[in-house]
Amino acid sequence: MSKQLAIGIDIGGTKTSFGFVDQEGKILLKDSILTTDFPDPKDLVNKISEIIIQQLADRQLPTANHMLAGVGIGAPNGNYFHGTIENAPNLKWKGIVHLANYFSEKLKIPAVLTNDANAAALGEMYFGGAKGMKDFIFITLGTGLGSGIVVNGRLVYGHDGFAGELGHTIIIQHGRQCGCGRKGCLEQYCSATGIVKTYLEILKSENPNILNNLDIGKITAKTIFEKALNGDEAAFYAFNYTGELLGFALANSVAYTSPEAIFLFGGLVQAGEILFNPVILSFEKNLLNNYRGKVKILPSSLPENDAAILGAASLIWNEFRKK
Amino acid sequence: MSKQLAIGIDIGGTKTSFGFVDQEGKILLKDSILTTDFPDPKDLVNKISEIIIQQLADRQLPTANHMLAGVGIGAPNGNYFHGTIENAPNLKWKGIVHLANYFSEKLKIPAVLTNDANAAALGEMYFGGAKGMKDFIFITLGTGLGSGIVVNGRLVYGHDGFAGELGHTIIIQHGRQCGCGRKGCLEQYCSATGIVKTYLEILKSENPNILNNLDIGKITAKTIFEKALNGDEAAFYAFNYTGELLGFALANSVAYTSPEAIFLFGGLVQAGEILFNPVILSFEKNLLNNYRGKVKILPSSLPENDAAILGAASLIWNEFRKK
Repeated sequence: MSKQLAIGIDIGGTKTSFGFVDQEGKILLKDSILTTDFPDPKDLVNKISEIIIQQLADRQLPTANHMLAGVGIGAPNGNYFHGTIENAPNLKWKGIVHLANYFSEKLKIPAVLTNDANAAALGEMYFGGAKGMKDFIFITLGTGLGSGIVVNGRLVYGHDGFAGELGHTIIIQHGRQCGCGRKGCLEQYCSATGIVKTYLEILKSENPNILNNLDIGKITAKTIFEKALNGDEAAFYAFNYTGELLGFALANSVAYTSPEAIFLFGGLVQAGEILFNPVILSFEKNLLNNYRGKVKILPSSLPENDAAILGAASLIWNEFRKK
Repeated sequence: MSKQLAIGIDIGGTKTSFGFVDQEGKILLKDSILTTDFPDPKDLVNKISEIIIQQLADRQLPTANHMLAGVGIGAPNGNYFHGTIENAPNLKWKGIVHLANYFSEKLKIPAVLTNDANAAALGEMYFGGAKGMKDFIFITLGTGLGSGIVVNGRLVYGHDGFAGELGHTIIIQHGRQCGCGRKGCLEQYCSATGIVKTYLEILKSENPNILNNLDIGKITAKTIFEKALNGDEAAFYAFNYTGELLGFALANSVAYTSPEAIFLFGGLVQAGEILFNPVILSFEKNLLNNYRGKVKILPSSLPENDAAILGAASLIWNEFRKK
């Protein structure tokens, strides 16, 4: 009997990763190419398809018989309904790119595409801590803040395919300028870049001239975490402020879909208690009575390096389940 | 052939209304009793059941043959999963009341219960302006702010049955005291009582002693509306402020479920343009680019007096559809 495999593809601003994934969430083989090497998205599709076909022909997979069930793609500004990437600010591909179509035409198998955080949320549901849960929210804390909302076992896409943009809810009116053109969006505070801004603001409030003496480019969420661990008060307070705001925002989120859990994913989550303690404290404090003590805030249990491929592949297993 | 009818029941703090509703949303007969006359909820169930059975026996309905498909109940703090009313602050019934069970035992037909705003949202979907829509949000602007969220044609209940409490998202941190124990909840600003508070604040800011000379009990959303129509600036500004905040809150809501439309229902909505103009202006201004121009803000098209009964009855038609 042949084994069903999905191809999971994660389109990033710099790198595109892909791999063969089985229905148990095991990655049998993976590879990556530079997204930036392909100004024309069709060339990227051709290149990945070539590599995949070659890998199959070379029998590089550990088992002998395979059936490719489909291609799942996670991408910034991905639209599930149309299989398109639409006006993604972090990609060189402008306008509307019919990436799912390109893949399914090239490989003659179904292709499904959604935004990267949505894909990761499905990954958490099939292969991570959300197994068996029907209602949860998945948050990625990276350069920005991405989110995927699952209601009654289904991803929420909304009427246009763009539901779940919690990073662009305005959390502080007239707050920090956001890349989206508005001010005060959650991702300007609660993300790897947000915490750097917070940290610099704290330093500046202590000493207005300090920024002249700092190599700002070297300050990252990771260095702030290390400083916090070493007792640096400003760094510790930056995590505290980030966590407090995130906890507040998540408490408001619960009033929408009343999830069983909220999963946090991404580099910032590695900070552990220094982030989770203020998040949970502020979350419980700001939660409506009805919900208090019922909603778990959990770190994602997906392996960070493979989460995007697993999530993208689970799009295919999810299509199977729907039929 | 017999005609299928549902009984729609709307449990209010003061009055409980009920009626026979057909699948086209026509109310064939309706009645009401005082909720406050029944300290024991079982007595209310018995009384309503008696009236219904009597009405059927007396052949008071305009057509001859009927089959009762079920009882749909809209109630404050209603939990769909358990058919219960749970700790409703506006009812005398304390704790957890198994109201759906009482009705189905008494009348020997299925009974379904949910919170009143959820029921009204279904009413809008079956018999109002949301016909054919799969993703929308329904907002009731009454004493408080209630909401029902529909995603992909289904009401969002969440893992515990209490999803959709937008009135208790915190819109202004450390803002007005809310009955829920927290501060700054949306319903403290955007509701019939919220606008009265806003209006009084405006008057007080103009003249700190003015409240001593006013009969505050006589100031309602309706009198503020009338004043605004007659050119009273403070009243007009109160509507403006209410609308601006509501538009802002709704813009954030779109980032969750990306609805096709948001319906506004309740007495405050009768104000028309004086409310809708600032809502829509602020909504579009605060909306993420992706969503701009795509989401309609509409007045509910349910008749105000019958909306609750229609909504409650549509719970039954909705159960049918699921099978």
